[in-house]
Amino acid sequence: MNLEGLRVMGIDPGLTRCGLSIVEAGRGRAVIPVAVGVVRTPAGADLSERLLRLSRAVAEWMEEYRPDVVAIERVFERGNVSTVMHTAHAVGVLVLAAAERGIPVHMYTPSEVKKAVSGNGRADKRQMTTMITRILGLSEPPKPADAADALALAVCHCWRAPLLARTRSTLSQGGIR
Amino acid sequence: MNLEGLRVMGIDPGLTRCGLSIVEAGRGRAVIPVAVGVVRTPAGADLSERLLRLSRAVAEWMEEYRPDVVAIERVFERGNVSTVMHTAHAVGVLVLAAAERGIPVHMYTPSEVKKAVSGNGRADKRQMTTMITRILGLSEPPKPADAADALALAVCHCWRAPLLARTRSTLSQGGIR
Repeated sequence: MNLEGLRVMGIDPGLTRCGLSIVEAGRGRAVIPVAVGVVRTPAGADLSERLLRLSRAVAEWMEEYRPDVVAIERVFERGNVSTVMHTAHAVGVLVLAAAERGIPVHMYTPSEVKKAVSGNGRADKRQMTTMITRILGLSEPPKPADAADALALAVCHCWRAPLLARTRSTLSQGGIR
Repeated sequence: MNLEGLRVMGIDPGLTRCGLSIVEAGRGRAVIPVAVGVVRTPAGADLSERLLRLSRAVAEWMEEYRPDVVAIERVFERGNVSTVMHTAHAVGVLVLAAAERGIPVHMYTPSEVKKAVSGNGRADKRQMTTMITRILGLSEPPKPADAADALALAVCHCWRAPLLARTRSTLSQGGIR
Protein backbone atom coordinates (compact mmCIF):
# COMPACT_ATOMS: atom_id res chain seq x y z
CA MET A 1 0.00 0.00 0.00
CA ASN A 2 1.42 3.33 -1.06
CA LEU A 3 0.63 6.10 1.39
CA GLU A 4 2.63 8.79 -0.39
CA GLY A 5 0.79 12.10 -0.15
CA LEU A 6 -1.53 10.91 2.64
CA ARG A 7 -2.23 13.85 4.93
CA VAL A 8 -2.45 12.87 8.59
CA MET A 9 -3.67 15.03 11.47
CA GLY A 10 -2.22 14.07 14.85
CA ILE A 11 -4.12 15.12 17.97
CA ASP A 12 -2.87 15.02 21.56
CA PRO A 13 -6.24 15.65 23.20
CA GLY A 14 -6.76 18.00 26.13
CA LEU A 15 -8.94 20.86 27.28
CA THR A 16 -6.29 23.13 28.80
CA ARG A 17 -3.83 22.35 26.01
CA CYS A 18 -4.58 20.31 22.90
CA GLY A 19 -1.72 19.51 20.54
CA LEU A 20 -2.52 19.53 16.81
CA SER A 21 -0.26 18.54 13.93
CA ILE A 22 -0.43 17.91 10.21
CA VAL A 23 2.10 15.74 8.37
CA GLU A 24 2.28 14.18 4.94
CA ALA A 25 3.54 10.70 4.21
CA GLY A 26 6.46 10.77 1.77
CA ARG A 27 8.38 7.98 0.00
CA GLY A 28 9.10 4.91 2.07
CA ARG A 29 9.28 5.94 5.71
CA ALA A 30 9.70 9.66 4.98
CA VAL A 31 7.25 11.96 6.79
CA ILE A 32 7.00 15.66 5.94
CA PRO A 33 5.89 18.13 8.62
CA VAL A 34 3.20 20.58 7.47
CA ALA A 35 1.92 22.32 10.62
CA VAL A 36 1.99 22.03 14.37
CA GLY A 37 0.34 23.99 17.14
CA VAL A 38 -1.43 23.97 20.47
CA VAL A 39 -5.00 25.06 21.19
CA ARG A 40 -5.53 26.35 24.72
CA THR A 41 -8.80 27.04 26.52
CA PRO A 42 -8.98 29.04 29.77
CA ALA A 43 -9.15 26.85 32.89
CA GLY A 44 -11.50 29.36 34.52
CA ALA A 45 -14.16 29.18 31.77
CA ASP A 46 -17.24 26.93 31.77
CA LEU A 47 -16.92 23.44 30.29
CA SER A 48 -19.41 24.47 27.55
CA GLU A 49 -17.36 27.48 26.56
CA ARG A 50 -14.12 25.46 26.54
CA LEU A 51 -15.55 22.62 24.43
CA LEU A 52 -17.01 25.15 22.00
CA ARG A 53 -13.65 26.91 21.60
CA LEU A 54 -11.83 23.60 21.10
CA SER A 55 -14.42 22.42 18.57
CA ARG A 56 -14.11 25.62 16.55
CA ALA A 57 -10.32 25.57 16.60
CA VAL A 58 -10.07 21.96 15.40
CA ALA A 59 -12.73 22.65 12.75
CA GLU A 60 -10.59 25.53 11.42
CA TRP A 61 -7.56 23.25 11.21
CA MET A 62 -9.57 20.58 9.40
CA GLU A 63 -10.97 23.13 6.94
CA GLU A 64 -7.57 24.66 6.29
CA TYR A 65 -5.44 21.51 6.02
CA ARG A 66 -8.01 18.93 4.82
CA PRO A 67 -6.46 15.85 6.48
CA ASP A 68 -7.30 12.42 5.01
CA VAL A 69 -7.21 10.78 8.42
CA VAL A 70 -6.97 11.69 12.11
CA ALA A 71 -4.71 9.92 14.64
CA ILE A 72 -5.66 10.67 18.25
CA GLU A 73 -4.37 9.42 21.58
CA ARG A 74 -6.57 6.92 23.39
CA VAL A 75 -7.39 8.22 26.88
CA PHE A 76 -7.15 6.02 29.95
CA GLU A 77 -8.50 6.33 33.44
CA ARG A 78 -5.25 7.38 35.02
CA GLY A 79 -3.98 10.37 36.91
CA ASN A 80 -6.10 13.24 38.16
CA VAL A 81 -9.81 12.32 37.92
CA SER A 82 -11.02 15.74 36.80
CA THR A 83 -8.27 16.05 34.14
CA VAL A 84 -9.05 12.59 32.72
CA MET A 85 -12.76 13.43 32.46
CA HIS A 86 -12.02 16.80 30.84
CA THR A 87 -9.73 15.09 28.34
CA ALA A 88 -12.38 12.44 27.61
CA HIS A 89 -14.97 15.19 26.99
CA ALA A 90 -12.47 16.86 24.64
CA VAL A 91 -11.94 13.56 22.77
CA GLY A 92 -15.70 13.34 22.18
CA VAL A 93 -15.71 16.79 20.59
CA LEU A 94 -12.55 16.16 18.54
CA VAL A 95 -13.75 12.80 17.17
CA LEU A 96 -17.12 14.40 16.34
CA ALA A 97 -15.38 17.14 14.32
CA ALA A 98 -13.70 14.44 12.21
CA ALA A 99 -16.92 12.37 11.91
CA GLU A 100 -18.89 15.41 10.70
CA ARG A 101 -16.39 15.77 7.85
CA GLY A 102 -16.23 12.06 7.03
CA ILE A 103 -12.58 11.86 8.14
CA PRO A 104 -11.67 8.42 9.56
CA VAL A 105 -10.24 8.38 13.09
CA HIS A 106 -7.59 6.01 14.48
CA MET A 107 -6.74 5.80 18.17
CA TYR A 108 -3.33 4.87 19.50
CA THR A 109 -2.22 4.30 23.07
CA PRO A 110 0.81 6.26 24.34
CA SER A 111 2.92 3.07 24.33
CA GLU A 112 1.93 2.24 20.73
CA VAL A 113 3.07 5.72 19.69
CA LYS A 114 6.35 5.40 21.62
CA LYS A 115 7.01 1.95 20.17
CA ALA A 116 6.30 3.06 16.60
CA VAL A 117 8.39 6.23 16.79
CA SER A 118 11.34 5.18 18.97
CA GLY A 119 11.19 1.38 18.95
CA ASN A 120 10.67 1.49 22.72
CA GLY A 121 7.17 1.49 24.27
CA ARG A 122 8.55 3.16 27.40
CA ALA A 123 10.63 5.90 25.80
CA ASP A 124 10.70 9.11 27.87
CA LYS A 125 9.72 12.59 26.67
CA ARG A 126 13.29 13.56 25.84
CA GLN A 127 13.90 10.47 23.69
CA MET A 128 10.59 10.98 21.90
CA THR A 129 11.34 14.64 21.19
CA THR A 130 14.79 13.73 19.84
CA MET A 131 13.32 11.06 17.54
CA ILE A 132 10.53 13.32 16.25
CA THR A 133 12.97 16.16 15.58
CA ARG A 134 15.20 13.76 13.61
CA ILE A 135 12.42 11.94 11.71
CA LEU A 136 10.80 15.18 10.56
CA GLY A 137 14.15 16.90 9.88
CA LEU A 138 13.24 19.85 12.10
CA SER A 139 15.85 22.51 12.84
CA GLU A 140 14.87 22.51 16.52
CA PRO A 141 12.77 20.36 18.88
CA PRO A 142 9.02 21.09 18.69
CA LYS A 143 7.58 22.82 21.77
CA PRO A 144 5.58 22.51 23.96
CA ALA A 145 5.35 18.79 24.76
CA ASP A 146 1.74 18.62 23.46
CA ALA A 147 2.93 19.76 20.02
CA ALA A 148 5.65 17.08 19.95
CA ASP A 149 3.10 14.46 21.05
CA ALA A 150 0.70 15.48 18.27
CA LEU A 151 3.52 15.07 15.71
CA ALA A 152 4.44 11.67 17.19
CA LEU A 153 0.83 10.49 16.81
CA ALA A 154 0.77 11.52 13.16
CA VAL A 155 4.14 9.81 12.46
CA CYS A 156 2.90 6.69 14.28
CA HIS A 157 -0.10 6.54 11.97
CA CYS A 158 2.04 7.00 8.83
CA TRP A 159 4.18 4.06 9.84
CA ARG A 160 1.47 1.78 11.16
CA ALA A 161 -1.21 2.39 8.53
CA PRO A 162 0.47 0.25 5.79
CA LEU A 163 0.76 -2.61 8.30
CA LEU A 164 -2.88 -2.24 9.35
CA ALA A 165 -3.94 -2.19 5.69
CA ARG A 166 -1.93 -5.37 4.95
CA THR A 167 -3.44 -7.11 7.98
CA ARG A 168 -6.96 -6.21 6.87
CA SER A 169 -6.21 -7.33 3.34
CA THR A 170 -4.81 -10.67 4.54
CA LEU A 171 -7.83 -11.15 6.78
CA SER A 172 -10.28 -10.39 3.99
CA GLN A 173 -8.49 -12.89 1.74
CA GLY A 174 -8.92 -15.50 4.44
CA GLY A 175 -5.15 -15.68 4.96
CA ILE A 176 -5.49 -15.68 8.73
CA ARG A 177 -7.91 -18.12 10.30
CA MET B 1 -37.20 33.97 41.25
CA ASN B 2 -40.14 32.76 39.17
CA LEU B 3 -39.25 29.84 36.94
CA GLU B 4 -42.77 29.33 35.56
CA GLY B 5 -42.58 28.37 31.92
CA LEU B 6 -38.85 27.54 32.05
CA ARG B 7 -38.19 24.65 29.69
CA VAL B 8 -35.57 22.21 30.98
CA MET B 9 -33.91 19.41 29.03
CA GLY B 10 -32.69 16.53 31.22
CA ILE B 11 -29.95 14.28 29.84
CA ASP B 12 -28.80 10.94 31.24
CA PRO B 13 -25.66 10.65 29.11
CA GLY B 14 -24.54 7.45 27.43
CA LEU B 15 -23.42 6.10 24.09
CA THR B 16 -25.37 2.82 24.01
CA ARG B 17 -28.44 4.48 25.54
CA CYS B 18 -28.85 8.20 26.22
CA GLY B 19 -31.96 9.34 28.09
CA LEU B 20 -33.49 12.65 26.97
CA SER B 21 -36.37 14.54 28.55
CA ILE B 22 -38.11 17.89 28.33
CA VAL B 23 -40.14 19.35 31.20
CA GLU B 24 -41.60 22.75 31.95
CA ALA B 25 -41.58 24.40 35.35
CA GLY B 26 -45.10 25.21 36.52
CA ARG B 27 -46.41 27.16 39.54
CA GLY B 28 -44.58 26.53 42.80
CA ARG B 29 -43.07 23.07 42.68
CA ALA B 30 -45.23 21.86 39.79
CA VAL B 31 -43.32 20.32 36.88
CA ILE B 32 -45.05 19.46 33.60
CA PRO B 33 -43.67 16.63 31.41
CA VAL B 34 -43.32 17.52 27.72
CA ALA B 35 -41.30 14.70 26.16
CA VAL B 36 -39.12 11.75 27.08
CA GLY B 37 -37.13 9.29 25.03
CA VAL B 38 -33.95 7.28 24.63
CA VAL B 39 -31.36 7.61 21.87
CA ARG B 40 -29.48 4.40 21.13
CA THR B 41 -26.35 3.91 19.04
CA PRO B 42 -25.17 0.46 17.88
CA ALA B 43 -22.44 -1.02 20.09
CA GLY B 44 -20.76 -2.52 17.03
CA ALA B 45 -20.31 0.80 15.20
CA ASP B 46 -17.19 3.00 15.27
CA LEU B 47 -16.91 5.62 18.00
CA SER B 48 -17.04 8.35 15.30
CA GLU B 49 -20.27 7.00 13.88
CA ARG B 50 -21.85 6.65 17.31
CA LEU B 51 -20.90 10.18 18.43
CA LEU B 52 -22.19 11.60 15.14
CA ARG B 53 -25.55 9.84 15.55
CA LEU B 54 -25.87 10.99 19.16
CA SER B 55 -24.94 14.56 18.21
CA ARG B 56 -27.57 14.66 15.45
CA ALA B 57 -30.27 13.15 17.67
CA VAL B 58 -29.72 15.63 20.50
CA ALA B 59 -29.55 18.50 17.99
CA GLU B 60 -32.98 17.47 16.64
CA TRP B 61 -34.42 17.48 20.16
CA MET B 62 -32.93 20.91 20.86
CA GLU B 63 -34.29 22.32 17.59
CA GLU B 64 -37.73 20.84 18.17
CA TYR B 65 -38.21 21.64 21.87
CA ARG B 66 -36.01 24.74 22.29
CA PRO B 67 -35.02 24.15 25.94
CA ASP B 68 -33.90 27.18 27.99
CA VAL B 69 -31.39 25.13 29.95
CA VAL B 70 -29.85 21.65 29.98
CA ALA B 71 -29.37 19.52 33.13
CA ILE B 72 -26.95 16.64 32.60
CA GLU B 73 -25.52 13.99 34.90
CA ARG B 74 -21.93 14.48 36.00
CA VAL B 75 -19.86 11.40 35.10
CA PHE B 76 -17.46 9.82 37.54
CA GLU B 77 -14.62 7.40 37.14
CA ARG B 78 -16.48 4.37 38.38
CA GLY B 79 -17.53 1.03 37.02
CA ASN B 80 -16.39 -0.40 33.72
CA VAL B 81 -13.47 1.64 32.31
CA SER B 82 -14.54 1.50 28.68
CA THR B 83 -18.16 2.42 29.52
CA VAL B 84 -17.06 5.41 31.63
CA MET B 85 -14.83 6.68 28.81
CA HIS B 86 -17.59 6.23 26.23
CA THR B 87 -20.01 8.10 28.47
CA ALA B 88 -17.46 10.89 28.99
CA HIS B 89 -16.98 11.19 25.20
CA ALA B 90 -20.79 11.37 24.86
CA VAL B 91 -20.94 14.14 27.50
CA GLY B 92 -18.45 16.18 25.46
CA VAL B 93 -20.67 15.94 22.38
CA LEU B 94 -23.90 16.64 24.33
CA VAL B 95 -22.48 19.70 26.13
CA LEU B 96 -21.11 20.98 22.80
CA ALA B 97 -24.59 20.71 21.22
CA ALA B 98 -25.95 22.96 23.99
CA ALA B 99 -22.98 25.37 23.78
CA GLU B 100 -23.40 25.76 20.01
CA ARG B 101 -26.97 26.94 20.64
CA GLY B 102 -26.12 29.18 23.58
CA ILE B 103 -28.07 26.96 26.00
CA PRO B 104 -26.60 26.98 29.53
CA VAL B 105 -25.63 23.59 30.99
CA HIS B 106 -25.85 22.51 34.64
CA MET B 107 -24.31 19.29 35.91
CA TYR B 108 -25.68 17.30 38.81
CA THR B 109 -24.25 14.23 40.52
CA PRO B 110 -26.52 11.15 40.87
CA SER B 111 -26.83 11.76 44.62
CA GLU B 112 -27.81 15.42 44.11
CA VAL B 113 -30.58 14.26 41.78
CA LYS B 114 -31.76 11.57 44.21
CA LYS B 115 -31.72 14.02 47.14
CA ALA B 116 -33.64 16.69 45.22
CA VAL B 117 -36.29 14.33 43.87
CA SER B 118 -36.81 11.87 46.75
CA GLY B 119 -35.23 13.62 49.74
CA ASN B 120 -32.77 10.73 50.00
CA GLY B 121 -29.34 10.85 48.30
CA ARG B 122 -29.24 7.05 48.29
CA ALA B 123 -32.72 6.31 46.95
CA ASP B 124 -32.84 3.20 44.76
CA LYS B 125 -34.14 3.00 41.18
CA ARG B 126 -37.59 1.85 42.26
CA GLN B 127 -38.05 4.72 44.73
CA MET B 128 -36.86 7.24 42.14
CA THR B 129 -39.22 5.91 39.48
CA THR B 130 -42.13 6.05 41.93
CA MET B 131 -41.33 9.67 42.86
CA ILE B 132 -40.89 10.79 39.24
CA THR B 133 -44.16 9.13 38.22
CA ARG B 134 -45.96 10.92 41.08
CA ILE B 135 -44.29 14.34 40.65
CA LEU B 136 -45.05 14.46 36.93
CA GLY B 137 -48.52 12.94 37.32
CA LEU B 138 -47.75 10.20 34.79
CA SER B 139 -50.28 7.41 34.25
CA GLU B 140 -47.51 4.81 34.33
CA PRO B 141 -43.79 4.68 35.27
CA PRO B 142 -41.45 5.96 32.53
CA LYS B 143 -39.34 3.25 30.86
CA PRO B 144 -36.54 2.40 30.35
CA ALA B 145 -34.47 3.50 33.36
CA ASP B 146 -32.51 6.00 31.25
CA ALA B 147 -35.75 7.83 30.41
CA ALA B 148 -36.73 8.01 34.10
CA ASP B 149 -33.22 9.29 34.96
CA ALA B 150 -33.45 12.00 32.31
CA LEU B 151 -36.78 13.16 33.79
CA ALA B 152 -35.30 13.11 37.31
CA LEU B 153 -32.41 15.36 36.15
CA ALA B 154 -34.84 17.87 34.67
CA VAL B 155 -37.02 17.88 37.83
CA CYS B 156 -33.88 18.27 39.95
CA HIS B 157 -32.94 21.38 37.99
CA CYS B 158 -36.45 22.88 38.28
CA TRP B 159 -36.30 22.54 42.05
CA ARG B 160 -32.68 23.52 42.57
CA ALA B 161 -32.45 26.43 40.12
CA PRO B 162 -34.40 28.92 42.30
CA LEU B 163 -32.10 28.08 45.22
CA LEU B 164 -28.98 28.49 43.06
CA ALA B 165 -30.33 31.83 41.79
CA ARG B 166 -31.00 33.07 45.36
CA THR B 167 -27.51 32.02 46.45
CA ARG B 168 -25.93 33.89 43.54
CA SER B 169 -28.10 36.93 44.19
CA THR B 170 -27.19 36.94 47.90
CA LEU B 171 -23.52 36.58 47.00
CA SER B 172 -23.64 39.43 44.49
CA GLN B 173 -25.29 41.66 47.11
CA GLY B 174 -22.44 40.86 49.46
CA GLY B 175 -24.82 39.06 51.83
CA ILE B 176 -22.41 36.18 52.32
CA ARG B 177 -18.84 37.06 53.17
